[in-house]
Amino acid sequence: MQRPSGRNPQALRPIRITRRYTKHAEGSVLIEFGDTKVICTASVVAGVPSFLRGQGQGWLTAEYGMLPRSTGTRMDREAARGKQQGRTVEIQRLIGRSLRAAIDLNALGENTIHLDCDVIQADGGTRTASITGAWVALADAVAWLKAEGRVTDEPLKRAIASVSVGIYQGVPVLDLDYPEDSAADTDMNVVMGDDGGIIEIQGTAEAEPFTEAEFAAMLSLAKQGIGQLHQLQQQALSH
Amino acid sequence: MQRPSGRNPQALRPIRITRRYTKHAEGSVLIEFGDTKVICTASVVAGVPSFLRGQGQGWLTAEYGMLPRSTGTRMDREAARGKQQGRTVEIQRLIGRSLRAAIDLNALGENTIHLDCDVIQADGGTRTASITGAWVALADAVAWLKAEGRVTDEPLKRAIASVSVGIYQGVPVLDLDYPEDSAADTDMNVVMGDDGGIIEIQGTAEAEPFTEAEFAAMLSLAKQGIGQLHQLQQQALSH
Amino acid sequence: MQRPSGRNPQALRPIRITRRYTKHAEGSVLIEFGDTKVICTASVVAGVPSFLRGQGQGWLTAEYGMLPRSTGTRMDREAARGKQQGRTVEIQRLIGRSLRAAIDLNALGENTIHLDCDVIQADGGTRTASITGAWVALADAVAWLKAEGRVTDEPLKRAIASVSVGIYQGVPVLDLDYPEDSAADTDMNVVMGDDGGIIEIQGTAEAEPFTEAEFAAMLSLAKQGIGQLHQLQQQALSH
Amino acid sequence: MQRPSGRNPQALRPIRITRRYTKHAEGSVLIEFGDTKVICTASVVAGVPSFLRGQGQGWLTAEYGMLPRSTGTRMDREAARGKQQGRTVEIQRLIGRSLRAAIDLNALGENTIHLDCDVIQADGGTRTASITGAWVALADAVAWLKAEGRVTDEPLKRAIASVSVGIYQGVPVLDLDYPEDSAADTDMNVVMGDDGGIIEIQGTAEAEPFTEAEFAAMLSLAKQGIGQLHQLQQQALSH
Amino acid sequence: MQRPSGRNPQALRPIRITRRYTKHAEGSVLIEFGDTKVICTASVVAGVPSFLRGQGQGWLTAEYGMLPRSTGTRMDREAARGKQQGRTVEIQRLIGRSLRAAIDLNALGENTIHLDCDVIQADGGTRTASITGAWVALADAVAWLKAEGRVTDEPLKRAIASVSVGIYQGVPVLDLDYPEDSAADTDMNVVMGDDGGIIEIQGTAEAEPFTEAEFAAMLSLAKQGIGQLHQLQQQALSH
Amino acid sequence: MQRPSGRNPQALRPIRITRRYTKHAEGSVLIEFGDTKVICTASVVAGVPSFLRGQGQGWLTAEYGMLPRSTGTRMDREAARGKQQGRTVEIQRLIGRSLRAAIDLNALGENTIHLDCDVIQADGGTRTASITGAWVALADAVAWLKAEGRVTDEPLKRAIASVSVGIYQGVPVLDLDYPEDSAADTDMNVVMGDDGGIIEIQGTAEAEPFTEAEFAAMLSLAKQGIGQLHQLQQQALSH
Repeated sequence: MQRPSGRNPQALRPIRITRRYTKHAEGSVLIEFGDTKVICTASVVAGVPSFLRGQGQGWLTAEYGMLPRSTGTRMDREAARGKQQGRTVEIQRLIGRSLRAAIDLNALGENTIHLDCDVIQADGGTRTASITGAWVALADAVAWLKAEGRVTDEPLKRAIASVSVGIYQGVPVLDLDYPEDSAADTDMNVVMGDDGGIIEIQGTAEAEPFTEAEFAAMLSLAKQGIGQLHQLQQQALSH
Repeated sequence: MQRPSGRNPQALRPIRITRRYTKHAEGSVLIEFGDTKVICTASVVAGVPSFLRGQGQGWLTAEYGMLPRSTGTRMDREAARGKQQGRTVEIQRLIGRSLRAAIDLNALGENTIHLDCDVIQADGGTRTASITGAWVALADAVAWLKAEGRVTDEPLKRAIASVSVGIYQGVPVLDLDYPEDSAADTDMNVVMGDDGGIIEIQGTAEAEPFTEAEFAAMLSLAKQGIGQLHQLQQQALSH
Repeated sequence: MQRPSGRNPQALRPIRITRRYTKHAEGSVLIEFGDTKVICTASVVAGVPSFLRGQGQGWLTAEYGMLPRSTGTRMDREAARGKQQGRTVEIQRLIGRSLRAAIDLNALGENTIHLDCDVIQADGGTRTASITGAWVALADAVAWLKAEGRVTDEPLKRAIASVSVGIYQGVPVLDLDYPEDSAADTDMNVVMGDDGGIIEIQGTAEAEPFTEAEFAAMLSLAKQGIGQLHQLQQQALSH
Repeated sequence: MQRPSGRNPQALRPIRITRRYTKHAEGSVLIEFGDTKVICTASVVAGVPSFLRGQGQGWLTAEYGMLPRSTGTRMDREAARGKQQGRTVEIQRLIGRSLRAAIDLNALGENTIHLDCDVIQADGGTRTASITGAWVALADAVAWLKAEGRVTDEPLKRAIASVSVGIYQGVPVLDLDYPEDSAADTDMNVVMGDDGGIIEIQGTAEAEPFTEAEFAAMLSLAKQGIGQLHQLQQQALSH
Repeated sequence: MQRPSGRNPQALRPIRITRRYTKHAEGSVLIEFGDTKVICTASVVAGVPSFLRGQGQGWLTAEYGMLPRSTGTRMDREAARGKQQGRTVEIQRLIGRSLRAAIDLNALGENTIHLDCDVIQADGGTRTASITGAWVALADAVAWLKAEGRVTDEPLKRAIASVSVGIYQGVPVLDLDYPEDSAADTDMNVVMGDDGGIIEIQGTAEAEPFTEAEFAAMLSLAKQGIGQLHQLQQQALSH
Repeated sequence: MQRPSGRNPQALRPIRITRRYTKHAEGSVLIEFGDTKVICTASVVAGVPSFLRGQGQGWLTAEYGMLPRSTGTRMDREAARGKQQGRTVEIQRLIGRSLRAAIDLNALGENTIHLDCDVIQADGGTRTASITGAWVALADAVAWLKAEGRVTDEPLKRAIASVSVGIYQGVPVLDLDYPEDSAADTDMNVVMGDDGGIIEIQGTAEAEPFTEAEFAAMLSLAKQGIGQLHQLQQQALSH
């Protein structure tokens, strides 16, 4: 088995994390998983949605989008169609759930953090890149809140990263790019904390069902890949 | 640990599958997982969406809804708000993906099967009940297509069923009802074929991340529960 | 003249009213007019819409929907299209107006009652079945409000029921089913109180205009049919 | 009893019908029922909606709108809100149904007539003025089709007019203006053909149910008023 | 060069301004630029949008619409499509910006003035007619506010009028009608105050770019035409 | 007068044009006007909209968007709100009109070019940067069409660039950044071809009307600035 990219099955694509990518947001990161490029911003807004008002806790929510020509053929602009696609809705819910596991909403006070993940170039794995990059933007926004004295207790509970794994031509592979993703038998996205805990697993059989053994092999690969991503997140935050 | 319902951790709720529940649809099933009640219909429509036209294959798609007062407090009617909620979109995409794994789209010819899962009473597990019931409706619709002579090859590849599992007060439990679901540490939905293959796994840590061991325990419980559901589906189809 | 169902012209279809059909709503009724089946729920919500706030009175509003495959050919799901059809809007406004005639909004206090009428199987007369069933659900919700001590004066002023009448092959007939409805010359829906007063009349010539004499014959039939429906409502409430 | 306008109970408001009111439409009428002013246009468009294509028949449809400040307090503009109100939908369906009774769709050929009724000043009775004026615009559009040689058989079957009647302070009155309409016990809109047939009756009890005797009295008043409207329509068409 | 209308290049079309055109609005004007006819109303509503609340100042906003058959071929009704066209949005923003230049928002107090410009017949220049007519409606609404004692300082700073100019067959012409507008090389809309200041200029090359000299010639024509419009506005206000 | 940025009144901000910025589009440019950064892509799609079908000509259309946190405070995501803002609609119409002046639609054949301008960081002048960058992307897409042999005649008629000018503290200044833009008395956007022709002028008085002399001074500044932009476009295309 030869991966289209020539990578070995356990290898991530080259990962780049660029902090302070745009100047306005409290946290702003360009994350690249190979040719997949996502701008992740974390915006702090005072106050919380009405269903949480007066409870002294904060909120974190996420939105996801793709530029119309981030992909091989141009997609309709969702703002012009007046509706987000089902896939978009599904992904932004996953990002929001995953990142809420990173944060102590009580320690956040009545502040809301909006995570925006906008794909400027897509080559597979946009949701896992989004989660991994959004956590770095979140960490910067939390640091800003602390520097501003707007929170006193530490709201950040753990680091969160995510990677895809799949069965490609019968072999478990890490971090699928688009040519692999569209041909894979099975595709699984895993979100984990740097404490080794599992936050979210979403596995989907594309053509044929997968076995527990395949599942275990994929999970093991994911764990190793996410470990590397956590290291890269810490490196990015250290300078 | 005592489950709110008094069930033992490995027990499904009472499951009832009523075929021919409404008279117009080619397949129509009321499925009950305890107090969760879902009407699942399978409607055959000649032709396929434009992106598949002329390829000689069929299509299967699913939609999900809840009656406004299927829940403890009344929800807004999505048709009146003019928008489906994110949760709705996520669930109907899961149902569609899962049931497409049951069917050979080439053997279906240029026909579309619409699965509609409408919750009339909710008590946890509406998406797993929907998948399990929709498969029975689908089997009836496929039988109708064959009886009508509109398909010749067998489009049905396997039976599909689904159940939720979770960690409740530290103990892995099967088929969570609403009181358990809202208090669980972790919630996982598993979709499997009757050939033992995994079709979809979606696991979400609610409060704290979960471990691989917990994951394995949950998967094992799910497997056993889904086996029972496959038997109940076959029983329902046998008379 | 032979009615497709074999009924005599003055005969209602078999009517069944099942209370406490779902468990969450303050009033929940399955009403069947022959093969037409509608779930009617009455939900009590504290507070009133903003245009009534602070006036010490309550509000009652209604919504109507059909499951996509409640009919012979599948209809688009309104929630997915993002818009209710004109027919839906017209019917839910009729249900709301009719049921507000049943209630003393001042005696209701600042509570809102939402009536939801969802058709699970359609065979003609869904709006008249909805009104008739919704009144029973409303009566149960009002009883609940009184039992809870949330209202003191009696908000229920009268019983409300509704039936359709039409001219079918030149003969006035009561309670049209779908085969009659689609072939009728004239179709009229009548809503009356159990005090004999007329709440709403909507008569429409389908092919040719109708005469005053035909109108009078239809109204007389409706009166008789609604009398029977009022008896059936009281029977249903008595156990 | 004194009507706010000083009219006697059997009197219409001053009615004015101005043909060729705007220059582009095949039929264009300004109709005034006292201070209620509606522009009614009939536009001929070649072709029919897809559900009728290839059947050799035509179609007629109607839309209704109010300028935002046609009323005492400014209403939201429906185009800006992105949604027509329920009342608007109900009225335009009534106009369409009523005017389809005027026309032989087979004789129309594959042409569609769009009736647009836009209220520029409202003082009660906008739907009855719309129907009455739209018929005149329709007659002009049909004349245009015949002059153009686009239809050969006569598509116009009868004249259609409409008026409101009500019970005001216990007395049946004809053609309610806004002060009467908002205080009436009962409000009924009647649509009739010039052959004396009833096309549509919509009666609504506002405060208390109404009796059959009241109903008969209102219907008789309506008949007389519609007779006058039919004369005024013919006068308008004669020059 | 011969203009389709036979006008000389410097001539406006016949302009008519009818005040008190409808009875409900605080200012209501029918303005006619030849066959272009627009109803402009100014509605006073107490209070301001939330982004201005508590600042003691007022607001002015505008909306624009065309009746579906105000044009040669019927357009879709924007309220029915659920969306305003891009052109509509662009025009109503221009009207709002232009008329805000007429008013001292601080002197207005916490009142909002809604300007509604509805085209009942279109023959080119609907946006310039709208601005010119809306100013007269605004002047009437401001007079009403002063007469009611709801404002004390004068909110009206200057008169505003607007005209189109273009290059038609190589010649600069004033106030284009539809046949000219659709054939012009260049089209420019100019909004000016009666103090000679420029409020807004929007020039668009249709086929070929235009030169500075052409631009200057058009601006000079516009200035002269707007001078006449300001006189006609004052005449209209004087009786 | 001191500009906030310290620039002299005739100076553009540093301009950077990066071609081949993303890999999928036929033309893809990152354009920077100082801190304003816009991704402009040109996508070629075979075929034309239905209103042009069968006429042998092409089409060019533009869409514009801003990432939610491209600005100082986070804006709602238009795709999530289900509606583009009026400002967005206005800008994308301007971009489309301006760039259609660059192209001979007949020479394009039945191809559509979609220009997408997405602002990733905003600091004033996003529409002028969009037009200037979109032209470079368009030139690359046209070169691609020619290289592919899909067009034979040259579709590119001229280069197009755009800049803003304004009156800031009484002085005409070129290429306003956000601090200037929000404080300017007058703001004007000019679009010109490299043949010196004017394509579009949009001038708006913010606080007070502007004079012809001010207008002339601004236009002269714009002309000089656009000349520089045309040089920078050519430089970018030359390597």
